[in-house]
Amino acid sequence: MKKEILFTPGPTNVPLEILREGAKRTIHHRTKPFAEIIQKVTEGLKKIFVTDGDVFILTSSGTGAMEACVVNFLSKNDSVLVLNIGAFGRRWVNILKAYGLNPDVIEYPWGEAFKTEDVEKKFSEKKYRAILCQLSETSTGTANDIKSLGKIKPEGTLLIVDAVSGLLTEEFFMDDWNVDICAAGSQKGLMLPPGLAFVAVKKGLSEEAGKNDLPSFYFSLHAARNYLAKGQTPWTPAVNAVYQLQKAIEMIEEEGAENVIGRHKLLAEITRKCAAQMRLELFSSSPANGITALKVPEGIDGTKMLEGITKKFGVRFANGQREYKGKIFRVAHMGYVNISEMLMALNCLWLGLRESGFDVPEDAISETLKFASEKIKK
Amino acid sequence: MKKEILFTPGPTNVPLEILREGAKRTIHHRTKPFAEIIQKVTEGLKKIFVTDGDVFILTSSGTGAMEACVVNFLSKNDSVLVLNIGAFGRRWVNILKAYGLNPDVIEYPWGEAFKTEDVEKKFSEKKYRAILCQLSETSTGTANDIKSLGKIKPEGTLLIVDAVSGLLTEEFFMDDWNVDICAAGSQKGLMLPPGLAFVAVKKGLSEEAGKNDLPSFYFSLHAARNYLAKGQTPWTPAVNAVYQLQKAIEMIEEEGAENVIGRHKLLAEITRKCAAQMRLELFSSSPANGITALKVPEGIDGTKMLEGITKKFGVRFANGQREYKGKIFRVAHMGYVNISEMLMALNCLWLGLRESGFDVPEDAISETLKFASEKIKK
Repeated sequence: MKKEILFTPGPTNVPLEILREGAKRTIHHRTKPFAEIIQKVTEGLKKIFVTDGDVFILTSSGTGAMEACVVNFLSKNDSVLVLNIGAFGRRWVNILKAYGLNPDVIEYPWGEAFKTEDVEKKFSEKKYRAILCQLSETSTGTANDIKSLGKIKPEGTLLIVDAVSGLLTEEFFMDDWNVDICAAGSQKGLMLPPGLAFVAVKKGLSEEAGKNDLPSFYFSLHAARNYLAKGQTPWTPAVNAVYQLQKAIEMIEEEGAENVIGRHKLLAEITRKCAAQMRLELFSSSPANGITALKVPEGIDGTKMLEGITKKFGVRFANGQREYKGKIFRVAHMGYVNISEMLMALNCLWLGLRESGFDVPEDAISETLKFASEKIKK
Repeated sequence: MKKEILFTPGPTNVPLEILREGAKRTIHHRTKPFAEIIQKVTEGLKKIFVTDGDVFILTSSGTGAMEACVVNFLSKNDSVLVLNIGAFGRRWVNILKAYGLNPDVIEYPWGEAFKTEDVEKKFSEKKYRAILCQLSETSTGTANDIKSLGKIKPEGTLLIVDAVSGLLTEEFFMDDWNVDICAAGSQKGLMLPPGLAFVAVKKGLSEEAGKNDLPSFYFSLHAARNYLAKGQTPWTPAVNAVYQLQKAIEMIEEEGAENVIGRHKLLAEITRKCAAQMRLELFSSSPANGITALKVPEGIDGTKMLEGITKKFGVRFANGQREYKGKIFRVAHMGYVNISEMLMALNCLWLGLRESGFDVPEDAISETLKFASEKIKK
């Protein structure tokens, strides 16, 4: 049987209600009915980012949204600081370098969050045009303290946050936290298939897009801004994906964005409790709500174990990325996941560990259930 | 009733068989089953472009594919020639300028195709790194003679063709015609919803991607090339759109790509015959197979007439773009359209013209039917 549930950090499981919106008749994008959808979803996204600014919808992956943050607001000679805590921190560095910037980078060992005091020190030494970081670093399952950065950020420094895997999984208040620009993607907390990405820009700032010296065309927010006012995008958008976005926003509003984040927090707590009961070590010292990275126990072939779990139980976890392949594995609890599915995944993890020869405690799952039972009561 | 059929040049009507593929379960993109799909559709696309080279699948609109052609292969100081016959020729110019190039442009009045002898003259005066043009110019319904350019193109000059609306509507043999790089989109001849775009690159040339001095990241074909070998894309692709692409290619292979082009040719002939019978003037002196641009008769409000046709009959034609809004209108016969639907559209056009007060000959449709009947016999 080919049934497979994703506990991966994107793509994630897409609800049938959303999938089937993609099968609706494709209407023309330069029409009033479509403009009304764009306007409606844009308002919905603003509530999700918790911003009064602009939200731009791009037909691209999250990486495209990250690139849009850079090419619209930064210039070649800008002094820029990247807080690199994993693969997506590296991506900021690589995008900046591709456009000829030479960023200062504070690099942390994988599994650690940035330390705000390190940034404070940097700020005291040098004036930065922008600081770039992740709300949630997918590669290491680590959440960063963005709020603290917003507090110490000097006037004139842009705080640019990749919230691709953090939006709707972590608490995030873009305006309150003093975040200037934020990138997000569709296939994470928003429960959508991949194909759309979003850039949220603080009120008043989108007028500055394109006044920098980096080239942009497809990702030009200056162009996008001119069209947004009439509920349009400069280039033909993925119309059916926008239908799906509309449905996703409806579902999120029905659950309540704060409850969505609370659900992710609960699933993460249950997963961490279970991991502890299984005598697995957390990889991150600041674990994220959307994804739990765990160290593969000594003597176990992590890649083989994950393949076995996928093949035998139809449950897919994510391997470690790059140099951490086979050394860590990542259990995503992101998007359309509820407690019952989380328990199912953890049961399968227990079986997989046992099959791999790891001495996994027999009561790990029953202890997890007790913990979950207590948590649900509250 | 909200039923509406698109005779617009993208989005076009998407068959239900393709739409519902978008509602299938989203699988993970870093898996063997997905790699097999990517490899299969890539082979299918190569047959459609008629090339032995590489075809890259992008999650973007066709404009993203055009940008990819530029940023991967051209450099700031390159001498570049654009053949500008309409809105999409202008788009080449704007993309090039956004990246700091200063192209030579041969600009033709809207409605005309380029003249190969003009290009020959330019080639005799100056050595060009690249020449950029359209196979089919959507804004004016004009087909260009790409084959002739390939014949006179000097060694070392890249022939870069925007075939976004031309692929599968016009005859096109990328390799045989000496075309180096070609951009296409999903929502035209391929009968897909918008959201995917394609860049085909002549065999051996993709190795050169990124050796130029323009910046690129999301649209980097150097990155894409490294992933394509393993059936992957560097960034998370629109998985469900790729399912739809697979289905579209199956349907096109079943009909036969040459028959698909033949069908477009026939629909264009029927449309032009009908237009002549209606005493409407063709806008283009070199009409395309995918779209017929017609002049709005004197004294008629073109925009109002189109709105009436959409509202009353559920048939949507396209208005003229930019300065031609209300002066021309465009009847697209692109993608999933058959003769019966084309006749329906033309019947509605007849009604619309009549309602607008135009003295449209009463036998226009019956003459068109006779013509179609003769054509079908052959």
